[in-house]
Amino acid sequence: MEYTMMSHFLGAPFMQISFSFSSFADFQDVHVMVFAGFGFLMTFLRKYGFSGVGFNLLIAALGLQWGTFIHGIFYSHGQKFQIEIKSMINADFSTVAVLISFGAVLGKTSPIQMLIMTILEITVFVANEYLVFEIFSASDIGESMTIHAFGAYFGLAVAGILYRSKLKEGHPNEESVYHSDLFAMIGSLFLWIFWPSFNSAIADNEKKQYRAIVNTYFSLAASVVTAYACSSLLESRGKLNMVHIQHASLAGGVAVGTCADMEISPYYAMIIGSVAGVVSVLGFKSLTPLFATKLRIHDTCGVHNLHGLPGVIGGLASIIILALESSDPAKMASQAAALGSSIATALVGGLITGAILKIPIWEQPSDEDCYDDSVYWEVLCSVLRMYMMTILGKVLPTTCLDVCVASLCQNWLNSPLIERN
Amino acid sequence: MEYTMMSHFLGAPFMQISFSFSSFADFQDVHVMVFAGFGFLMTFLRKYGFSGVGFNLLIAALGLQWGTFIHGIFYSHGQKFQIEIKSMINADFSTVAVLISFGAVLGKTSPIQMLIMTILEITVFVANEYLVFEIFSASDIGESMTIHAFGAYFGLAVAGILYRSKLKEGHPNEESVYHSDLFAMIGSLFLWIFWPSFNSAIADNEKKQYRAIVNTYFSLAASVVTAYACSSLLESRGKLNMVHIQHASLAGGVAVGTCADMEISPYYAMIIGSVAGVVSVLGFKSLTPLFATKLRIHDTCGVHNLHGLPGVIGGLASIIILALESSDPAKMASQAAALGSSIATALVGGLITGAILKIPIWEQPSDEDCYDDSVYWEVLCSVLRMYMMTILGKVLPTTCLDVCVASLCQNWLNSPLIERN
Amino acid sequence: MEYTMMSHFLGAPFMQISFSFSSFADFQDVHVMVFAGFGFLMTFLRKYGFSGVGFNLLIAALGLQWGTFIHGIFYSHGQKFQIEIKSMINADFSTVAVLISFGAVLGKTSPIQMLIMTILEITVFVANEYLVFEIFSASDIGESMTIHAFGAYFGLAVAGILYRSKLKEGHPNEESVYHSDLFAMIGSLFLWIFWPSFNSAIADNEKKQYRAIVNTYFSLAASVVTAYACSSLLESRGKLNMVHIQHASLAGGVAVGTCADMEISPYYAMIIGSVAGVVSVLGFKSLTPLFATKLRIHDTCGVHNLHGLPGVIGGLASIIILALESSDPAKMASQAAALGSSIATALVGGLITGAILKIPIWEQPSDEDCYDDSVYWEVLCSVLRMYMMTILGKVLPTTCLDVCVASLCQNWLNSPLIERN
Repeated sequence: MEYTMMSHFLGAPFMQISFSFSSFADFQDVHVMVFAGFGFLMTFLRKYGFSGVGFNLLIAALGLQWGTFIHGIFYSHGQKFQIEIKSMINADFSTVAVLISFGAVLGKTSPIQMLIMTILEITVFVANEYLVFEIFSASDIGESMTIHAFGAYFGLAVAGILYRSKLKEGHPNEESVYHSDLFAMIGSLFLWIFWPSFNSAIADNEKKQYRAIVNTYFSLAASVVTAYACSSLLESRGKLNMVHIQHASLAGGVAVGTCADMEISPYYAMIIGSVAGVVSVLGFKSLTPLFATKLRIHDTCGVHNLHGLPGVIGGLASIIILALESSDPAKMASQAAALGSSIATALVGGLITGAILKIPIWEQPSDEDCYDDSVYWEVLCSVLRMYMMTILGKVLPTTCLDVCVASLCQNWLNSPLIERN
Repeated sequence: MEYTMMSHFLGAPFMQISFSFSSFADFQDVHVMVFAGFGFLMTFLRKYGFSGVGFNLLIAALGLQWGTFIHGIFYSHGQKFQIEIKSMINADFSTVAVLISFGAVLGKTSPIQMLIMTILEITVFVANEYLVFEIFSASDIGESMTIHAFGAYFGLAVAGILYRSKLKEGHPNEESVYHSDLFAMIGSLFLWIFWPSFNSAIADNEKKQYRAIVNTYFSLAASVVTAYACSSLLESRGKLNMVHIQHASLAGGVAVGTCADMEISPYYAMIIGSVAGVVSVLGFKSLTPLFATKLRIHDTCGVHNLHGLPGVIGGLASIIILALESSDPAKMASQAAALGSSIATALVGGLITGAILKIPIWEQPSDEDCYDDSVYWEVLCSVLRMYMMTILGKVLPTTCLDVCVASLCQNWLNSPLIERN
Repeated sequence: MEYTMMSHFLGAPFMQISFSFSSFADFQDVHVMVFAGFGFLMTFLRKYGFSGVGFNLLIAALGLQWGTFIHGIFYSHGQKFQIEIKSMINADFSTVAVLISFGAVLGKTSPIQMLIMTILEITVFVANEYLVFEIFSASDIGESMTIHAFGAYFGLAVAGILYRSKLKEGHPNEESVYHSDLFAMIGSLFLWIFWPSFNSAIADNEKKQYRAIVNTYFSLAASVVTAYACSSLLESRGKLNMVHIQHASLAGGVAVGTCADMEISPYYAMIIGSVAGVVSVLGFKSLTPLFATKLRIHDTCGVHNLHGLPGVIGGLASIIILALESSDPAKMASQAAALGSSIATALVGGLITGAILKIPIWEQPSDEDCYDDSVYWEVLCSVLRMYMMTILGKVLPTTCLDVCVASLCQNWLNSPLIERN
């Protein structure tokens, strides 16, 4: 569609538009992933759903404006910069890196800290992307290295700096309930469904786009199967763990990203997806607790397992495939440079950003207030009240009940009873 | 896409199809907004989720059939009328006006009243749309005036006529709980994500469609940022209000609708979005309570703040932009006429419709039964029962417990214990 | 879009791609239906939401790989088989048949049983599809007969073999709660919204695709209206039943599938949809209880009413329309053969599959463990704990409370207290 549309535009007076295969439908798919996918994936905490989906919206809405601006500066070479569907996709992509990092510090930071991180991270992200694509001329269509590995390691570096040693035993709010996990599943599924669009959105010709779609489709399917198998094998009594399913099912999409448009058989894509599913579950099971205790890095959503490791797998897979094809060694070096650059830039950028966010003026929540919506949102205690009314309504007078509920709410949500207006 | 497709169709014997740029993908995006977007946005009330999403489906399904019919009558000029993608989009659009009005009276009307309103409002809506586009030749690509302002003022007029003075102190059911607000967020996000498709769906050439997409994208992003800022500034202790976020984040999409396809810079779109975000939050904070107490108009979803005010801003913005471009004054007059006509027709139509709905034969719910699904739906008391079993299962025999639950249910849901078959 | 895209591909060396109108956007719509639509539709049980959406993902992810393979074997005639968008749509389609059958046995089978059923059913499904389209040359664009009737009768046959006579009085877990029904509504709406894409995805020219879209749009709208009317008429005191709405609203999409691309007026599509809505609600009201008691077939989701009966209506409607058009009797015979073959193959395949699944080595859950996530998933008791803390936190010390919660959990979920890691 875009092809036809764009060729009509070429030479049109109102806007200079560069030739692009990216279509509006691809953009909308990516848009669903950014706002509904990542948003709901972060609602899994029982008392942090408003913040999960709400701050995701705020970060992404600010990020896409800033991303458009920074991207324009880097690529316009001093000329008036162009807005096209592809630049909207790129702006959405730059917010994804921030949303991944947000996952690592979810529940432990204030919205102001997140807005600062958005501004800083996108700037570093676009610089690294420029390095990878323009200087190294590396290939990374699904941006496994430049978005996923970058976002994960940036987030881990920030989380390391902001480590709260008092919470090393865990926090009572840092758990999910049945319905919060179902809300998170909405996010996980919409990410899963539209990942083929993500990995093919910025392809510069139709063959590549087509291959990226097919390979991502099969890699994702393979990673679902290994994630289930692995989760069941590793958990006690063969049960499945919802966290593994929500995240490791997506690992195939991340890992196949770098080589999705290469001339590989879907068979290779399935191998990559299978490996990513296994590695991701293993990461949740062994690396995340290790990071929290030994490295003093607490990764709330386990972004290392969904984005970090599979992103690295993606980069390595592209090098292996180039080696198998016995192509130009310079190409392999490009890929290695891109992977190294993405991780190194992310770590340095993350450490600096973390240091800035540590300055005690950004309203960082206290340890007790972590993972709690009521610090940032007007939350109603009416569920509690409803149950109290049901159970004690006959026994106690309403005014007495109200006082009772208000007092419980203060304990429960650390805030007085607030009515929604 | 449609372009190619349609040109193939032209001259095809089976159906006469007018030239159209509207594509099937645009239609599906609008369809998601109508059924999932508006549907879930109305599930925020704690005991009215089934009705919110369920009656939304019923209204829209009836409305699109009736809208196709009425639209065909107005535009076919006596000939057999054509069904094309664009007419399906127009049918969906006509239901949006009704769904907006439904928001104003949510929880206070019966399904029969809503079906009557659907028939009446769509008829008036299509008449006004004909006036605006065919007689005034006004420009309103995202239909900010003809759908959003129209729907809001129609709904407010109906709500004014159906005002229940006994509920002026509020109703215990008229509040949200944590999970109902998360369900509403599903609706809000899908509206947000697909709004660029809404504002560009009926563009009659690709340049306009393209501009409408880009401008809506930036306007929406800007309104998210100002909505968060404004909500935090206006609420006590800097907390965010979920109602503001759910609605004011979308105000930018409504406000930019009228001038989305004009040759404006995305910079202007961001200004329009920012203003709309601020005005919408201010409306929730000050106008809605004022309307309820002084004007005796109770607006359940606050449609005036999301659709009414931003719709008017959209109309005014188009006039200002035409003035800045120093274009033909007749064009500005058209826009002003379109805005005036949309509001006036809506108010008159709404007052008449309200008067018809007030006739006491349409099974309007009593004051106590407002905002309560159990009046219209078979609702299970099993949550209550489950908790009772858990807590008292050891102490009381099951039969005793059943009687106890049934009696509590009767108080709680005003209905005897009903099992789902 | 695909047209242009494909014509570019033709003659491209890297892959032989057959001419196809199926577009990537159609594929993504179908993909949403398979993973989010069917997935959430099956979350309606109060304690089986993880399994509903989770096993749906597992079945579909395995099924699409197996479906691609089997489809390739049947259609490649010994040559290297081609992967194109249409083959991805076909792979997704083959999983839909399994997901329908999964609905019939939901809550009563183990994941291992479901994986075996996936492998067996898809093999039979592709064989029947080959028979219908290649041998009988029947017309079934929306696959009402080959997917929907097939999947339903296959599932019913399996459910018949696996009948649990001890559960004929019902099971305490086999019911929904308020929020589980709202989650199911997410699935229902996304199925409803994208059904026009489903019925038009494999059309082989644009006229047919266009007709299929328009007819499905109107048929679905009509079935919503009759489903509401019929549900309200049949339930006590005119109330609506959420189960009817979730399923019967979709019956119009199934029933119009076979003749969606025929040269019929939208008026006929609306008649088909209306009839399907009525029949579906009648089925829920009278046939499902009858099946469970007399035929010893327990159909958890009522797939017979959503897929079985409307699928048969679809087949019959196509014969009637061909008769009205007084077309070649051979065509009518083809359609009748396709309908007969789909039902017969499904029943035979289902009976054999059921017999294999009955072998007591597949970890089938015991009668008490039916409809219970905690058998397969690590489920947190934290909701219970939270309420206990709120109510008794002041009175009891935390350690005492933990023991108390753990003991209650064991009773409630038949599992010890498990923390989410």
